Amino acid sequence: MSRKELKKKIWEIIEPSDTESRESYIFGIFITGVILLNITAMVLSSIWEIHTDYPIIWTILLLISASTLIIFILEYLLRLWTCTADPEYAKPIIGRLKWAKTPFALIDLLVILPYILLMFTSINLTGLVVLRVFRLFKLVRYSESINLIIRVIKAEKNTLFTTYLVLFIVLIAAATLMYEVEYPAQPEAFSSIPAAMWWGVITLTTTGYGDIVPITPLGKMLGTVIALIGIAIFALPAGILASGFSKALETEIRDDEVYLCPHCKEEIKGRDLWKK
Amino acid sequence: MSRKELKKKIWEIIEPSDTESRESYIFGIFITGVILLNITAMVLSSIWEIHTDYPIIWTILLLISASTLIIFILEYLLRLWTCTADPEYAKPIIGRLKWAKTPFALIDLLVILPYILLMFTSINLTGLVVLRVFRLFKLVRYSESINLIIRVIKAEKNTLFTTYLVLFIVLIAAATLMYEVEYPAQPEAFSSIPAAMWWGVITLTTTGYGDIVPITPLGKMLGTVIALIGIAIFALPAGILASGFSKALETEIRDDEVYLCPHCKEEIKGRDLWKK
Amino acid sequence: MSRKELKKKIWEIIEPSDTESRESYIFGIFITGVILLNITAMVLSSIWEIHTDYPIIWTILLLISASTLIIFILEYLLRLWTCTADPEYAKPIIGRLKWAKTPFALIDLLVILPYILLMFTSINLTGLVVLRVFRLFKLVRYSESINLIIRVIKAEKNTLFTTYLVLFIVLIAAATLMYEVEYPAQPEAFSSIPAAMWWGVITLTTTGYGDIVPITPLGKMLGTVIALIGIAIFALPAGILASGFSKALETEIRDDEVYLCPHCKEEIKGRDLWKK
Amino acid sequence: MSRKELKKKIWEIIEPSDTESRESYIFGIFITGVILLNITAMVLSSIWEIHTDYPIIWTILLLISASTLIIFILEYLLRLWTCTADPEYAKPIIGRLKWAKTPFALIDLLVILPYILLMFTSINLTGLVVLRVFRLFKLVRYSESINLIIRVIKAEKNTLFTTYLVLFIVLIAAATLMYEVEYPAQPEAFSSIPAAMWWGVITLTTTGYGDIVPITPLGKMLGTVIALIGIAIFALPAGILASGFSKALETEIRDDEVYLCPHCKEEIKGRDLWKK
Repeated sequence: MSRKELKKKIWEIIEPSDTESRESYIFGIFITGVILLNITAMVLSSIWEIHTDYPIIWTILLLISASTLIIFILEYLLRLWTCTADPEYAKPIIGRLKWAKTPFALIDLLVILPYILLMFTSINLTGLVVLRVFRLFKLVRYSESINLIIRVIKAEKNTLFTTYLVLFIVLIAAATLMYEVEYPAQPEAFSSIPAAMWWGVITLTTTGYGDIVPITPLGKMLGTVIALIGIAIFALPAGILASGFSKALETEIRDDEVYLCPHCKEEIKGRDLWKK
Repeated sequence: MSRKELKKKIWEIIEPSDTESRESYIFGIFITGVILLNITAMVLSSIWEIHTDYPIIWTILLLISASTLIIFILEYLLRLWTCTADPEYAKPIIGRLKWAKTPFALIDLLVILPYILLMFTSINLTGLVVLRVFRLFKLVRYSESINLIIRVIKAEKNTLFTTYLVLFIVLIAAATLMYEVEYPAQPEAFSSIPAAMWWGVITLTTTGYGDIVPITPLGKMLGTVIALIGIAIFALPAGILASGFSKALETEIRDDEVYLCPHCKEEIKGRDLWKK
Repeated sequence: MSRKELKKKIWEIIEPSDTESRESYIFGIFITGVILLNITAMVLSSIWEIHTDYPIIWTILLLISASTLIIFILEYLLRLWTCTADPEYAKPIIGRLKWAKTPFALIDLLVILPYILLMFTSINLTGLVVLRVFRLFKLVRYSESINLIIRVIKAEKNTLFTTYLVLFIVLIAAATLMYEVEYPAQPEAFSSIPAAMWWGVITLTTTGYGDIVPITPLGKMLGTVIALIGIAIFALPAGILASGFSKALETEIRDDEVYLCPHCKEEIKGRDLWKK
Repeated sequence: MSRKELKKKIWEIIEPSDTESRESYIFGIFITGVILLNITAMVLSSIWEIHTDYPIIWTILLLISASTLIIFILEYLLRLWTCTADPEYAKPIIGRLKWAKTPFALIDLLVILPYILLMFTSINLTGLVVLRVFRLFKLVRYSESINLIIRVIKAEKNTLFTTYLVLFIVLIAAATLMYEVEYPAQPEAFSSIPAAMWWGVITLTTTGYGDIVPITPLGKMLGTVIALIGIAIFALPAGILASGFSKALETEIRDDEVYLCPHCKEEIKGRDLWKK
């Protein structure tokens, strides 16, 4: 097999696509397992008791973290090397840069970046630990179900944006009024409009921690009105997502079902049935 | 350009309408930006730490407040001057008064009123700060998305009124019963039926701050029954708004569906059907 | 007007029916106002501060309570006297007893019973104050909107019963497991399965007071699983009521709309339009 | 009646099936009552006050527990003996083992197992009390309504799995970010990512106990964003179950609708359409 053929072969295996070969499918399962292992190690290694009381488990977690990271780096480098097999990224340098700027390549880079920087520099990387959350997005590439929810969010994009804008206006109005009413009685709790907005979010989403609560009669009356009207509006995104989700799943199923006409005994596809 | 033409030109630019010119569109974006700046300044200037620790930011916030207010006053005066260009408000005095009584003109006035009063009188205006929340309604005029939710609320007006009436009756019943049961054990917390209604709202909306909680076994049993039955009824407004919202958004799609006329048996596209 | 005609006239005015005369409509509004006054007085007179600090308001509340009660008693006696005008309750004694056993007559009686008993006996009536909540049901008779929600609940009766049965089983399972797990760590909070059921209701309805919370790692894991699975099932009654409500309101509206066919220009009723 | 006929008769009575005889129906009601009695005894006997203060009620509860257990054991043995009457489990030993491995037989066994083990061994059975919850599943066999919800869950299996997977990813992302932000300020509350996941579950399900709450400004801002976006996604399972439930209940109505066959143009009633 020539080098070019090898490149093409590797690219086809490691890059998820619609027409998947068996090798590509197996690689997908393998890398999903590696990602899950890496996330599990990240979650567990944040428990301090494991560090202090169970040094063996701690070592295993470190080994998992290190080995999965090496796999991520190898995977990134393999992609960077073989992406020229794709006609879209064919040019050695410009093509590779073009590939590196695709969203998934950027996510892959953000996952390994803190560790690569650590190898070559001595700067403080505490701020970069937040990037750890990006490894979750690596799962998206391999999960059909997560792609579905992303499709639904995209389809309902405008509606969701609209409702969040309305939520924001309702939130500021509720917080401003509550601040005026409760500030004199509780200058600590309702110290400013942003503080009242925290109360507003926790109340209007019906979370209700109870850390900030109106105590004056007027504040409770206002809180009652805000709760009764506002939570109906704050439930809109959930309703829109749920209906978009069930719409997306129904279209796939309904049209493909096959029925039998009792008169002519012929088969009818779901999409050919006319409702009278 | 004559004075009349100038008036007409300005009126067309500053008054939002269905057939918008380019200038009108740009003015809409500009004034939306000014409103958002004004609201941001209002929210941030309520944080006392900024006043004491960051005098420069504080000065900037004051400048933003003052300059956006001047723009609001100018905008109102311009509208008041040019509204006679509209045939509906053509008469110099009666027409201007008629315009000043439209909802949007009243909101514009309420936003600038406290400051105008301050210029000419020395009365205490603390009570008028509540009017500050009206500047949020200025956004409605320029936001297509907020108009949508207002349309939905209008369309579902009767249903929403019905459910809120039912909510109110369920709330009073729950509060009265809970007051009878818990008052002997907690005369402080469940001191009166209105106090029990605060418990009822916070429980039935599932907010659950935990500031008032039944503690007697009978109170807990009653609370269980109220929670299980009541929250189904208190979720009605959210369900109605969500379905009204998705209905309002689907109407647009409905134009592409094909119907059969029962009279001439011909096909009719949805967009050709006229609602009588 | 003969006595019989008078009786018939009064009965038609005070008894709500589908074909309402103008007098009957006015009486309905009057008695609804009286009921709302009575309920307001009941709610406000539970505030002790009014009793001690505002003796004038207290006297007004007492007067409202007394006069509205007299109206309720008069209304009941009038109904009891004139119900023989209705062919169904025509017999002087058996007919009146038959009427007195109808649900609405029983509610009317329960509202005035405690005070009638007080007039003739000297028994302690503290337990009867719970009957006060029944005056809310008097509103049902005069509210079209409350009748709608009762119709919806009746239509979805079986489904609602089913879901509440499922809720109950899920609740007992969750409480039993949580009791086993948390009892050793918090014998005070999770003292028994019924105590754990209180936790279960407050958690699964997402109220979350925070008065009882699992503190062991195993309890938190179990709580996580219960919350994630259970709240989906506990949201069922709300979803069923909301969809039943919107179904009930749509059937009334849709079929009555009239469209114009663009081909033959004839009118089509909504119910005659066939979807292709 | 021969022994074989007796076996067949008993099997038909005690085994729930679609074509139920009158005896089988009565036995179903009887055993449902026994299960409910047993569960009630289990719930009440966990209240320590009954043990210490009401010895008579305690004795009654013990008697109910014992006698219902004996009925469960007899029922299991009867089933084990007569199951060979069913052609599927006809072979004396292999057939009985095959029956004993069916889900319902296993549940029946798990309910009585702890007590059977207690009779023959002296091992500590504290861990087995968790098995008590399985007696709730015995109800499933006899409840049409619980079978409905199980059918709905099965029908929406894939969708539910998808959403729970998405929930899990959102949860880990939210917990990881919140842990980074709040750990320095509250090392006790947000001690590890799993601890932050407990916060995440309680917040995203809108339960909001208030036992762990972000206190830093950045943590509150992050909490606001997580609450506003996340609760829309966490409401998905509820929305899916509710729509699946109403779909399952509507299928019965669908039989009355009329469709047009695209081949022979004849009308078909919904109930005559065969699903292929």
